[in-house]
Amino acid sequence: MVNIVIIGSGNVAHHLVEAFKIHEKLTVVQVICRNPKKMHGVIDAKLITNQYDEIINADIYIIAVSDDAIYEVAENLKLNDKLIVHTSGSKNLSDLGNQNRKGVFYPLQSFTKSKNINFKTIPICIEATSEKDYAILYNIANSISDYVYEINSEQRKMLHLAAVFANNFTNHMFKIANDICDSNNIPFEILKPLIKETSEKILTVSPNDAQTGPAVRKDLATINTQLSLLETENQKAIYKLLTQSIQSNV
Amino acid sequence: MVNIVIIGSGNVAHHLVEAFKIHEKLTVVQVICRNPKKMHGVIDAKLITNQYDEIINADIYIIAVSDDAIYEVAENLKLNDKLIVHTSGSKNLSDLGNQNRKGVFYPLQSFTKSKNINFKTIPICIEATSEKDYAILYNIANSISDYVYEINSEQRKMLHLAAVFANNFTNHMFKIANDICDSNNIPFEILKPLIKETSEKILTVSPNDAQTGPAVRKDLATINTQLSLLETENQKAIYKLLTQSIQSNV
Repeated sequence: MVNIVIIGSGNVAHHLVEAFKIHEKLTVVQVICRNPKKMHGVIDAKLITNQYDEIINADIYIIAVSDDAIYEVAENLKLNDKLIVHTSGSKNLSDLGNQNRKGVFYPLQSFTKSKNINFKTIPICIEATSEKDYAILYNIANSISDYVYEINSEQRKMLHLAAVFANNFTNHMFKIANDICDSNNIPFEILKPLIKETSEKILTVSPNDAQTGPAVRKDLATINTQLSLLETENQKAIYKLLTQSIQSNV
Repeated sequence: MVNIVIIGSGNVAHHLVEAFKIHEKLTVVQVICRNPKKMHGVIDAKLITNQYDEIINADIYIIAVSDDAIYEVAENLKLNDKLIVHTSGSKNLSDLGNQNRKGVFYPLQSFTKSKNINFKTIPICIEATSEKDYAILYNIANSISDYVYEINSEQRKMLHLAAVFANNFTNHMFKIANDICDSNNIPFEILKPLIKETSEKILTVSPNDAQTGPAVRKDLATINTQLSLLETENQKAIYKLLTQSIQSNV
């Protein structure tokens, strides 16, 4: 049995509690968060507190708060030589202070509170400073997910950056496509099957091999026509830069 | 019963023949293509020819060849007052010449020959110059797909351009993410569930509402750190421009 304290009440905290509570070998013994109401309905209200001095003994303390709050939360934990981890893709281990054993438990997914998630398919990237702590983290991660990776701090930052391209910037491409549809009275719905296929394709084909379109074909006539059709300078600049980037393949 | 002649042997021609032949009210009576072998196994070899003067009578002639070849193919069709259509997102009706009734039958999807496709879910954008021809196209499209849209030539060009953002440029974001992973010994696999979620999210949430990440949060510290981590000038330029674009929301 692993006893877990969760600090936080956001999307990640919420989904972690849900994932842990269906697993018999993992017990969330306490949730600490500023506004206990936010976790009502997720876990027994008696286990929730906003008082750091009520913190109880556990095997691991998972800080699942926004990046900027991690340092302050870690400072508030009056613990010694305990295993405390954060769930951030971009923060350093050093943000967890020096009073305790440190680690990272980073589930790589874009969480939405209202949307149920099957944690089994979410990659969890773990890091620890000793083999013993690594084993504890691996045991927890492996209980809730089928995809556990050992990722060190340097790699984790690069992975988080790669995720900005794969998620944030990709979503912005959808947004521009949506804008183009809107200003031409075209239902954005028409593009959804294509978007679905685009992301499904790279499950089996590398993005490099999956590239299609006027840029990779070096179809200058279509590229010039499309540039002239775009309505904003911003869209034109993006079209040019990405076309260039696809062609130079760097 | 609708008798159909297909001209072409590429991905679109291939998938159209497959889609038509399982529908009892649609009959592919002939396929014309330069290299008949390419269509062997897809349809009875006796129905395939590379001789334009062997062209037979049909209700509709679908030119499913590469954009640049449409004009020449249309010139070669020795027909008069027949309904001929192309399947291109970016070409004009005028590319089909003036001898015949013209139209467009544009299935909006990224086709791969080796991959089976359920045509029912592929949007088909149709255009015709008379109500009668529109009805013929609608009947065919509606037989093989649940998503048929009337899209005029101007809209179609903009839709094709939107698809460049939604598919080509999105895939390039995956490629850069893959490059970042490769150069840091991170398995690209880790990002696949996130990519899947990114495209699934916009089925129910608008891309504008789905935007997350340092750019939309205006998290300057993370943005600057990530810019300094990127390894190529090209990646930096793309990161800057897309971050700017997300923030200005134009």
